[in-house]
Amino acid sequence: MQASDIPLELDKLTWPEARDAAERGAGILLTVAATEQHGHHLPLGTDAITGQAVALRASVGLDLVVAPVLAYGYRSRPFSGGGQRFPGTTSLRGCTLVNVLTDIVNEFRRTGFRRIALLAHHMENQNFVYEAAYEAVGPEQTDGTRVMIIESPYAEFSPELAAELYPDGPPGRGLDHAAVVETSLMMYLHPELVRTDRMADDAPPRVPRYDMLPIPDGFTSASGVLSQTVTATPEIGHRCFDEITACLHDLLQDGLFSDLESDGNVAGA
Amino acid sequence: MQASDIPLELDKLTWPEARDAAERGAGILLTVAATEQHGHHLPLGTDAITGQAVALRASVGLDLVVAPVLAYGYRSRPFSGGGQRFPGTTSLRGCTLVNVLTDIVNEFRRTGFRRIALLAHHMENQNFVYEAAYEAVGPEQTDGTRVMIIESPYAEFSPELAAELYPDGPPGRGLDHAAVVETSLMMYLHPELVRTDRMADDAPPRVPRYDMLPIPDGFTSASGVLSQTVTATPEIGHRCFDEITACLHDLLQDGLFSDLESDGNVAGA
Amino acid sequence: MQASDIPLELDKLTWPEARDAAERGAGILLTVAATEQHGHHLPLGTDAITGQAVALRASVGLDLVVAPVLAYGYRSRPFSGGGQRFPGTTSLRGCTLVNVLTDIVNEFRRTGFRRIALLAHHMENQNFVYEAAYEAVGPEQTDGTRVMIIESPYAEFSPELAAELYPDGPPGRGLDHAAVVETSLMMYLHPELVRTDRMADDAPPRVPRYDMLPIPDGFTSASGVLSQTVTATPEIGHRCFDEITACLHDLLQDGLFSDLESDGNVAGA
Amino acid sequence: MQASDIPLELDKLTWPEARDAAERGAGILLTVAATEQHGHHLPLGTDAITGQAVALRASVGLDLVVAPVLAYGYRSRPFSGGGQRFPGTTSLRGCTLVNVLTDIVNEFRRTGFRRIALLAHHMENQNFVYEAAYEAVGPEQTDGTRVMIIESPYAEFSPELAAELYPDGPPGRGLDHAAVVETSLMMYLHPELVRTDRMADDAPPRVPRYDMLPIPDGFTSASGVLSQTVTATPEIGHRCFDEITACLHDLLQDGLFSDLESDGNVAGA
Amino acid sequence: MQASDIPLELDKLTWPEARDAAERGAGILLTVAATEQHGHHLPLGTDAITGQAVALRASVGLDLVVAPVLAYGYRSRPFSGGGQRFPGTTSLRGCTLVNVLTDIVNEFRRTGFRRIALLAHHMENQNFVYEAAYEAVGPEQTDGTRVMIIESPYAEFSPELAAELYPDGPPGRGLDHAAVVETSLMMYLHPELVRTDRMADDAPPRVPRYDMLPIPDGFTSASGVLSQTVTATPEIGHRCFDEITACLHDLLQDGLFSDLESDGNVAGA
Amino acid sequence: MQASDIPLELDKLTWPEARDAAERGAGILLTVAATEQHGHHLPLGTDAITGQAVALRASVGLDLVVAPVLAYGYRSRPFSGGGQRFPGTTSLRGCTLVNVLTDIVNEFRRTGFRRIALLAHHMENQNFVYEAAYEAVGPEQTDGTRVMIIESPYAEFSPELAAELYPDGPPGRGLDHAAVVETSLMMYLHPELVRTDRMADDAPPRVPRYDMLPIPDGFTSASGVLSQTVTATPEIGHRCFDEITACLHDLLQDGLFSDLESDGNVAGA
Repeated sequence: MQASDIPLELDKLTWPEARDAAERGAGILLTVAATEQHGHHLPLGTDAITGQAVALRASVGLDLVVAPVLAYGYRSRPFSGGGQRFPGTTSLRGCTLVNVLTDIVNEFRRTGFRRIALLAHHMENQNFVYEAAYEAVGPEQTDGTRVMIIESPYAEFSPELAAELYPDGPPGRGLDHAAVVETSLMMYLHPELVRTDRMADDAPPRVPRYDMLPIPDGFTSASGVLSQTVTATPEIGHRCFDEITACLHDLLQDGLFSDLESDGNVAGA
Repeated sequence: MQASDIPLELDKLTWPEARDAAERGAGILLTVAATEQHGHHLPLGTDAITGQAVALRASVGLDLVVAPVLAYGYRSRPFSGGGQRFPGTTSLRGCTLVNVLTDIVNEFRRTGFRRIALLAHHMENQNFVYEAAYEAVGPEQTDGTRVMIIESPYAEFSPELAAELYPDGPPGRGLDHAAVVETSLMMYLHPELVRTDRMADDAPPRVPRYDMLPIPDGFTSASGVLSQTVTATPEIGHRCFDEITACLHDLLQDGLFSDLESDGNVAGA
Repeated sequence: MQASDIPLELDKLTWPEARDAAERGAGILLTVAATEQHGHHLPLGTDAITGQAVALRASVGLDLVVAPVLAYGYRSRPFSGGGQRFPGTTSLRGCTLVNVLTDIVNEFRRTGFRRIALLAHHMENQNFVYEAAYEAVGPEQTDGTRVMIIESPYAEFSPELAAELYPDGPPGRGLDHAAVVETSLMMYLHPELVRTDRMADDAPPRVPRYDMLPIPDGFTSASGVLSQTVTATPEIGHRCFDEITACLHDLLQDGLFSDLESDGNVAGA
Repeated sequence: MQASDIPLELDKLTWPEARDAAERGAGILLTVAATEQHGHHLPLGTDAITGQAVALRASVGLDLVVAPVLAYGYRSRPFSGGGQRFPGTTSLRGCTLVNVLTDIVNEFRRTGFRRIALLAHHMENQNFVYEAAYEAVGPEQTDGTRVMIIESPYAEFSPELAAELYPDGPPGRGLDHAAVVETSLMMYLHPELVRTDRMADDAPPRVPRYDMLPIPDGFTSASGVLSQTVTATPEIGHRCFDEITACLHDLLQDGLFSDLESDGNVAGA
Repeated sequence: MQASDIPLELDKLTWPEARDAAERGAGILLTVAATEQHGHHLPLGTDAITGQAVALRASVGLDLVVAPVLAYGYRSRPFSGGGQRFPGTTSLRGCTLVNVLTDIVNEFRRTGFRRIALLAHHMENQNFVYEAAYEAVGPEQTDGTRVMIIESPYAEFSPELAAELYPDGPPGRGLDHAAVVETSLMMYLHPELVRTDRMADDAPPRVPRYDMLPIPDGFTSASGVLSQTVTATPEIGHRCFDEITACLHDLLQDGLFSDLESDGNVAGA
Repeated sequence: MQASDIPLELDKLTWPEARDAAERGAGILLTVAATEQHGHHLPLGTDAITGQAVALRASVGLDLVVAPVLAYGYRSRPFSGGGQRFPGTTSLRGCTLVNVLTDIVNEFRRTGFRRIALLAHHMENQNFVYEAAYEAVGPEQTDGTRVMIIESPYAEFSPELAAELYPDGPPGRGLDHAAVVETSLMMYLHPELVRTDRMADDAPPRVPRYDMLPIPDGFTSASGVLSQTVTATPEIGHRCFDEITACLHDLLQDGLFSDLESDGNVAGA
């Protein structure tokens, strides 16, 4: 295996280099992000920017090619992204997303890649990413391709970091949108893109156990921030980034490069 | 409002009765279930059977019509249903499911219903159900239709019941498949369909934080049961059913019949 | 072959039982019905209710698994179902129906079934059911799968019964909708669902040799009943049911279990 | 109204002439045919050739524009066209056909036509043609467009002609494929395209009440002719043509130019 | 090889003749045309009429079957056909066209043809025709099928003819629509369809290097003619036809019947 | 109008900033690029990298927001990109691309943008980009939206530059792929991504007037370079960049911000 400290980006490789990577058994990783509102203080590209940064760092030390990020993802939902009434959010229909990803996975295989990872770096992409992988390769082994689907990639943070992030406990699934973790990550990675003067805590007036369409007025916050934000700092962002990328690195090592078939029993047999 | 102790089932109404229900403002509820393996002891129809039973009971006391259950849902995934390698599991592609539900919601509206609820009684239907509602009605209000999307309907169980169900703590998201809750529910609702002699605890050899396709042998249990099962009893099923349906009843009351627009702020304004 | 008096229902089987049925060569039968107006006296579920009852009875004595009925079918047409202007009728687009059925047939094959029957128990499903089978298996033999498409399943009734049903001769193709046969069947199978006080003959003002969209006012009856109804009785329903299910039983025996290739010549050779 | 003895063909009109026709209320007629085997003696284009001839003749005396025939239709079925195993048969998938026709109807409306007729001159196009019209205009009136769907256009032949055509009675639905009527029509319209030396009666070995895919060898005739043929003559063809076109003429007059709304009651009201 | 002076038209062949042609290695040619405005003097069918005439003549001396022309193509664009605001223009959506052509190519292969040519005789069909061929056969050789895609088929005219056609130089890509070449061709092939009294030069007020939707008023000519027309004559049409068909004949000979694999190097190797 | 020297990038804006830009009438520009082989010396991302650089520079001085580049485009074709047999090329199906772009244009409109530009920076995207715009907004004006489609954006180079680039004349449409212009641009913009030691002239063995699928070996060059390359320099790249961006700037100014309706006549009127 040939890995390096400098992650290989598909768009910077020539075609013979991409072919050689595939032939020697390198993996390929696609980040499936979104263009989505992130409050008054974070840019619309937050998911794509942080997602690709995470992907590149997590790949260090693995024989992995990182494909151009898909900056357009599934529609935002009220309790994980504020929902599709915010201007600026620019989304794909579910079936469009499935088709885009199916095509891309098929093309990775045409190039010769057999270790493929899809990283959903936008909660709403869940299931659509899985479906695309299913459409491309199905449930039964054929040519040795494996498609790894990472839809909730991050480790639980370490107890120390979690305590600092959420002194009152985590805000609930999806509600960390545009909040302390994402803000801290952006402050660490791209401080010039954070409007720190406009950081403010916010929350949806109510968070029922259901969704509703058309989106009722009270089902999201006015700012698009879904929980506490003002405690964000670059230092916290640094620590989050390190924990997240270390976790993802291990997942990728395990999913793409371990010997999967030897450790279990046979489903449905 | 006109509600009754006997839930109205769409397939048992004549068309003038359906028209009248829609005209007086009744809601309509569609259970989106699955035909999916549930181990050696539960039948393939478990999701549809328990889902529709829950829907009917939860509707008591509400002015709600219950539509014929959709017994075919999205593909099973390894860590929430064993995955698509088990014989008997009979699933739809993601975009097929989106289209079926979009069509049905549009037809409910053609009939005149403006209060529509979609109950995803199969975890993998998540997001596809939401997308169908979005395709049908979009994000902005037009004719007063509201589509309620219930994708994780159940309340946290009461502490007493939870302690009894999971003495060692809950098994993790999705892993209660074909396990103590579903088995108990079926023992309560349809004891004749439970092969009690074949009940056995089981678990996937490993539960990584990612999915993989094609499905590796070790990514599910051999039986299709994903956690502890043998403690199931009809009495527990009875208590689960009561807590679940009470919770869903309140959700439906809140989502379909409350005044949504008056309680919040305006998204993206 | 292993057949029984108690038809096997897919949703009541465990996955190992479904696998075993497929492995020993059992067939599988899917009823493709509709949710459609049936006048002021019959419920919207008439096609699904009678269709599945017919399927279950006709399967007695055959090694056949009966799948959950598909309660949503193609759109109603004026001269065979009253057309898509009646409230309550809840239909799928043609291509949605094709895709649902294609998916289900493919899943039956994944489970291992090679003898598959699709019973269109709603006249308008015609051609869409055939197309789905074609999309799934194509025209040329590969793995021994046979998909039987039953779009007009019923035998001519016996002369005695026909004379009793239609003293003035049959009403014309499609026009027996919600009329004497369906009403009698429901009176026999589910008398509690027939509003006998609202039974009345009716007919479209005109029945031209063409269809029209949007549907003109005069192209259907006001009630949704398309011909004579009031002569219906449970006894007639009983006799219809017996003749229909005997006929279907023979068709299924012939189509799924006979040796098809030995009796003919080669198309296009 | 402006009608003439020379039917107007869309492909021979200039755009201002097409616009003027639409503006004055002319209708437009599209023949939806097929490229399909018609035995050893008739050409693959029989449906398109006779269909368009019928359309043009039936239009004489009506203010009707005839669009270019669609020569590719839905797949052939064994008992109405021999099925999709014959070489030369060149068909569209069902959903492709629906989309083609939906697009064309929408374009007719963009041009300004409000009286649109679709003539399915290939039995298997049935339902797909209706669905396309539904997708284009739906069930409820909006801008005055009417789409007439003619799926089984021909009158019963006169008793004299019928007796001559079928001395032993008609061969059953669909089985007149490539047989006495079509052969006679082609002998009358295009004698140079009929291989009279290869005319021969034929029939499928069996005609069960169901279809099967893949197509069993015995489910069609070897030649593709489905019933008696050798009695065909140009004179019979002439008489068939006259009866058919007179009937279609009256249908078109009735469907496109009569006052539909004044003659009936209101569906679902 | 068996070729003749009389081109073989698929719709005039019987199925055994089509089978025999495919078996002996004949090619098949489909003209993909349009129904599109061609000014005040040429009919809407100009692309289909001239395209099929060219196809038939170019096939003389080759073993080629000519399929029924597809008279409906992709939407007209302002600078190559006047755009989709002219009445009479009757077009397909891009994906509909791709699907129609994919289906037809697949059916040609089912019949046994391995030499398939698609002639885009409407500039806007470009890329959609290629995509259909790709969807049908893909990039890598399998069963010896070759699909030739001819999207800009015509040779440069001879210097003498070009000088006569365009004394001031050619009008620019696409702008010869409904102008001197097409008019001359129609005067030669179908003089009865040319309204010579309405021939007039015309041109879009502006021809920017971009397109715009919705189509601005100034982006096409009022008549639909896009450049100089009045110099058209039947004699010029004759010479154009001879040069065009000779060129296309050579292309077809080269593309369908030459030994392609022996003359080059291996892409991406 | 509010324009600036620093182009606004959508992914760096917050949602209120995107909303404000749309409200004040700013335009939005999406580059539709590709991931495609560019010989042994240029990276796979050449189209996306140079396309977005061109878009950003051309926007200087206009009130324009630049959206995240779409790095995946339509399939490569042999004579404009080497074709879909090169490893590394990662493409979308035609209909997938149409759907992605339709969705994005619809979302731009939801945000409030009414001046939308699509820049096809990959020759094969042609027509698919137009079709997406058509699907989104259609031919007739409604809400004032204009979608500008730029499929061949570049001006003719100045005579001096053209003479230097192509001493022997331009190589023909599409054949400048991975050749002197693209190489020079990359040497100017991203010299670190050009493998200058592997620059070499190359050309397809033959360039017939047609395409072929599957792709014959001789239909592209071995390297993927389609014409002369070795004369490329950063200085030429600088001059190309300046001419290209000046031209595109003027196009954008004209197409998005001029008063289109006042300068022409009415199509089809």
